[in-house]
Amino acid sequence: MTDILICSRDAMDYVEQIELAKITDLNLQICPKDPALIANGHRVDIILGEPELSIAALPYCPNVQWVQSTWAGIKPFIDKAPQTFELTGIKNVFGSQMREYVFSYLLYFSRKIQTFKELQSQQNWFQPNCTPLQGKTIGILGMGSIGIEVAKTAKHFGMEVFGIAQTPRSLDCVDEFYSLKHLKTFAHRLDYLVVLLPHTNKTENIINQECLTSLNPQCILINAGRGQVIDENALYNALTQNQIQAAVLDVFTEEPLPKEHPFWQLDNLYITQHTAAVSKPQEISNVFLQNLHLFLTKQKLQNLVEWSKGY
Amino acid sequence: MTDILICSRDAMDYVEQIELAKITDLNLQICPKDPALIANGHRVDIILGEPELSIAALPYCPNVQWVQSTWAGIKPFIDKAPQTFELTGIKNVFGSQMREYVFSYLLYFSRKIQTFKELQSQQNWFQPNCTPLQGKTIGILGMGSIGIEVAKTAKHFGMEVFGIAQTPRSLDCVDEFYSLKHLKTFAHRLDYLVVLLPHTNKTENIINQECLTSLNPQCILINAGRGQVIDENALYNALTQNQIQAAVLDVFTEEPLPKEHPFWQLDNLYITQHTAAVSKPQEISNVFLQNLHLFLTKQKLQNLVEWSKGY
Repeated sequence: MTDILICSRDAMDYVEQIELAKITDLNLQICPKDPALIANGHRVDIILGEPELSIAALPYCPNVQWVQSTWAGIKPFIDKAPQTFELTGIKNVFGSQMREYVFSYLLYFSRKIQTFKELQSQQNWFQPNCTPLQGKTIGILGMGSIGIEVAKTAKHFGMEVFGIAQTPRSLDCVDEFYSLKHLKTFAHRLDYLVVLLPHTNKTENIINQECLTSLNPQCILINAGRGQVIDENALYNALTQNQIQAAVLDVFTEEPLPKEHPFWQLDNLYITQHTAAVSKPQEISNVFLQNLHLFLTKQKLQNLVEWSKGY
Repeated sequence: MTDILICSRDAMDYVEQIELAKITDLNLQICPKDPALIANGHRVDIILGEPELSIAALPYCPNVQWVQSTWAGIKPFIDKAPQTFELTGIKNVFGSQMREYVFSYLLYFSRKIQTFKELQSQQNWFQPNCTPLQGKTIGILGMGSIGIEVAKTAKHFGMEVFGIAQTPRSLDCVDEFYSLKHLKTFAHRLDYLVVLLPHTNKTENIINQECLTSLNPQCILINAGRGQVIDENALYNALTQNQIQAAVLDVFTEEPLPKEHPFWQLDNLYITQHTAAVSKPQEISNVFLQNLHLFLTKQKLQNLVEWSKGY
């Protein structure tokens, strides 16, 4: 018998998806609100769950061998969990949502949708000049599976694509590749900067005042990685002083973003409440079930996190 | 000596582009505001111009052999010009602008950009559920060069693509192909209907009350073809009665759209003042210069309009 504990607000959906796979000798348990009430915690072999809920359950499950995160952001495990189990993340699932998110805003700005709405309210037939994405330059900070999907869409629209990552490599969907430390040297060439980096010690506050000052005043910044990657005070100053044109933020250092935070009030800041790419139980369950098969047959798991690297 | 008359509000740009090609024995003349003042009209061999301005010049240029339209919409020539010359249109130029236009609105709706703006103004961390384009169904009415570009972008985003045209054919970027007369039979399956048809006797009012009633109430209609293709009264009723979710209109029966037109006031109608794809003199000049070479070497012109078909 293999015991699986599910620590998720979508736990019922996960149970349904896993039961559909009709795997024998599985015991599924939904983690109770108070993890002290977990039944037979010492028998739990596997946790499938969101980082914070899973971490709260871990002390009651001393024999867990494997945790499958339902979220892409696994930093809380790195910071708070005992590194006594195998941790797997989620990859290749969020790319299609993320490319739609990023291009919804790129096209919203380039096609001046807000301007047309204002003209309409004035019954005004003025014809604004829209500048196409085609031929514009986009920098993508973080070239994992999500960054590659965004880059492919940028190429589809005829954009010039700069990829930025810790380790530059050659990709068909990238015109020029740079390492993180050279960010400042080409920042002024970007019309759009899309940040998709995870939160690690190396990426924290990498978008700082120095980086923001080196961007083109027309540049639009999108952050759909993690809030800690941006120095939020520096960004606030850059936006109020029009050092960049606008920012679209899906993620923040503190979430939910506190009511009193000055970001809410900025006209050139667009907030999307951490919705750019959401974990859908059906897709996450597929990833989990593939890994469960590997686990049960004692093979190496996919998307294994290296504890020392933090991703 | 070959005499070319340029009838365009961008005439200076066209002169500049044509002169760059350094073709000998060309005489370029910009059409004066009053076409009666055209110098040596009987010597004009070629007109390069917008439909209405060119049509006004034609009576003063009885020996014109070829007219290159700078616009995609050539219906005014069909209706009003003597069919004594060769008429060529513009193709393969507007596709990249049009795919950006269409997808800016598809993504604006699917990513709920307006909803997020409203939540932000309330400092509200509510997380709306966005439905991806991936897996949704788009119908494209008019499968010329522009329709094909829009279809390719739809496939890139993982959509199901229905192509609708007078003559169905097989295309990699289209999942199912229908003829115009079957529009009603699959209309209810569409999440998005994009109209890119030219104005001809066969397409006039093809989006009528019967067609609109057969659409799904969630369907979003985009018209970037010609205004006459839609029965505007029927569309007004469909929008006020929520028979469809929303419409985005770039083109209208009467342009500029009159100030008193009820379309301006509709919340679920988006007006874009005929800006979806604009003629850029540099791109149009390239098309013209390629055809000019064919003309001077007595070869068959490209993008020839068949007077009897009207396109």
